Amino acid sequence: MNPSHLLGPVLVLGSGLLGASIGLGLRARGVDVVLSDPSPSAQAVAVDIGAGRALELAEPLNPELVVVAAPPDVSATVVAAALRRYPSAVVVDIASVKFAVLAELRTLVGEDLGLLSRYVGTHPMAGRERSGPVAARGELFNSMPWVLCPSEVSSAHAVKVAHSLAIDLDAVVFRFSPEEHDEAVALVSHLPQIMSSLVASRLAETPAHALSLAGNGLRDVTRIAASDPSLWVQILGANAPKLLEIMQGVRLDLDRLISTLSAPTAPGARLDLAQLMAEGNAGQSRIPGKHGGPPQQYSWLTVLVDDKPGQIAKLLTEIGEIGVNVEDLRLDHSAGLQVGMVELSVLPSKRVNLVQDLTERGWKVIQ
Amino acid sequence: MNPSHLLGPVLVLGSGLLGASIGLGLRARGVDVVLSDPSPSAQAVAVDIGAGRALELAEPLNPELVVVAAPPDVSATVVAAALRRYPSAVVVDIASVKFAVLAELRTLVGEDLGLLSRYVGTHPMAGRERSGPVAARGELFNSMPWVLCPSEVSSAHAVKVAHSLAIDLDAVVFRFSPEEHDEAVALVSHLPQIMSSLVASRLAETPAHALSLAGNGLRDVTRIAASDPSLWVQILGANAPKLLEIMQGVRLDLDRLISTLSAPTAPGARLDLAQLMAEGNAGQSRIPGKHGGPPQQYSWLTVLVDDKPGQIAKLLTEIGEIGVNVEDLRLDHSAGLQVGMVELSVLPSKRVNLVQDLTERGWKVIQ
Repeated sequence: MNPSHLLGPVLVLGSGLLGASIGLGLRARGVDVVLSDPSPSAQAVAVDIGAGRALELAEPLNPELVVVAAPPDVSATVVAAALRRYPSAVVVDIASVKFAVLAELRTLVGEDLGLLSRYVGTHPMAGRERSGPVAARGELFNSMPWVLCPSEVSSAHAVKVAHSLAIDLDAVVFRFSPEEHDEAVALVSHLPQIMSSLVASRLAETPAHALSLAGNGLRDVTRIAASDPSLWVQILGANAPKLLEIMQGVRLDLDRLISTLSAPTAPGARLDLAQLMAEGNAGQSRIPGKHGGPPQQYSWLTVLVDDKPGQIAKLLTEIGEIGVNVEDLRLDHSAGLQVGMVELSVLPSKRVNLVQDLTERGWKVIQ
Repeated sequence: MNPSHLLGPVLVLGSGLLGASIGLGLRARGVDVVLSDPSPSAQAVAVDIGAGRALELAEPLNPELVVVAAPPDVSATVVAAALRRYPSAVVVDIASVKFAVLAELRTLVGEDLGLLSRYVGTHPMAGRERSGPVAARGELFNSMPWVLCPSEVSSAHAVKVAHSLAIDLDAVVFRFSPEEHDEAVALVSHLPQIMSSLVASRLAETPAHALSLAGNGLRDVTRIAASDPSLWVQILGANAPKLLEIMQGVRLDLDRLISTLSAPTAPGARLDLAQLMAEGNAGQSRIPGKHGGPPQQYSWLTVLVDDKPGQIAKLLTEIGEIGVNVEDLRLDHSAGLQVGMVELSVLPSKRVNLVQDLTERGWKVIQ
């Protein structure tokens, strides 16, 4: 069945960042959204910002869809209760792990396939680094992946309603089995989180003068180490089986590296190091490019700009005049002087002329 | 002794990216630069782009400074030869590891402290991801750290000349002992490189549909995994003792994590995971901010823009009009629709008004 627009009402259980954002996005489409959160203050904020109206205890609600926007730990319990309380509603959750939630739900509803057929696990991949309804935005899911993970007993109708939710919020829909989903996010999301935290944790007692040499490499690798521990404890715990397998593979590679570093002049040591680096090259090159397209090699150039308002805008305006599309852009933070570096990536065929044109216009292109 | 400007002539041995960039930068100051490279074609390119003149075999050269811009593996040998051949010159190298180069040099020049007093190890932290003289730029070192690592027998004059080189190229000078330097870069540069490569290497055989869920977290963590294996093999090999210690610490943390993931419902498992994440938070927060200043918490906001030339420039121009300085900026690559997301960081006190002003001007601010 093709997705269509939701008719509502939609009951959103949980009004944190994601629940409130779902409410805002659906309200913007005119859908009747009813909110409920165990925290009265979170619920009140979500209502105040227009994410929906508060659930009245006595109200005889017959929702088309219940969205369980609760922490991963309690998602299955809330889903089970919602399936029982609203006997004609489709129920979805949005936890970042899918197999553990489904497994727990099965133990909670037993063999009642009628209940289970109305459930679809989903995972909108957006906005996990901030929290609370104050940060909510109706456009949070715009262009972001939203993974649907129906179980083998999910009804076609339930999948259609879950799909409609993602489409109504302008997300990009993917469909995975719960196992496939957990395996995929273990690799593309949980593994980098763990490794980033492992690197950053080594810096806790590093002398400050050593940290003064930190460059963009370290900043990039440790950026997500700033993530919220309480949420990640639940995610990592719930995906432990898949992660265990991956981390054991990492340990084998690490052991091989440690043995190489213990005898760096032994025959084959250089080859071992080269292999680690080359495997890294190969894996990195497979990560899809912008907008999910095939990996694409862009050429980078770096331009020096004064570190004051308007300079980057001026640079980008001139690049637009030259007629070149900037594919990616980042500011380079270097220690010391008050000068900024803007790294730009463009199609390789555009690079030489762009460097020349910018130089003629007086910009300092440094590499 | 305070640094002053170099008088020249300066002999640069090696005309890859760094050697040619040093030549270009010094030529721009009017210094006489003489180039030599074992590869005639690399030397010819460097001369053609104006990085200096070719070394003539019969020329009776008396350089003020010899810059050894050779790969780490051969730096000590080239330094020793230069110290002998140019008896009044200061000699510096620019390899990314300093203790191994000094140790090898000591075995090469024996107890001749007269020779050794004219040598200063240095490490300009710039531009290692590209190679070859074609990519050279005189401004490559502008605002980047340049670490001076004199030995205990380096003369004050030699240190002054090395310092002048860094200053003439507009770098930001740091001074470390060779051991301190290697310890610092092991943590802030080599460790993230290894961990990035370890993450990326796991993606080499990941199904493509799993990679379609890749987000900025994975992209950030694996960005430097694209680095050149041949250079990194030399760097990691030469810094093996310091790295070994760090990687053994990482293995202990990893073993603890693996044991936690093996029994994720055991008592204390949640606490172990929370501790890893919290240690990561603590370490990440210690990384210095922009321009080497203290770590600073900026507020982020994300704005949706059409993915076509000129849109980002327009956004930044309007932010300039509103009067807010953008501290950092990145494009968010999401799978799917042809819409771009610009993440901006600003001072926390500016965020609320900026969101409001941008929204009033018709921009979609999504978080």
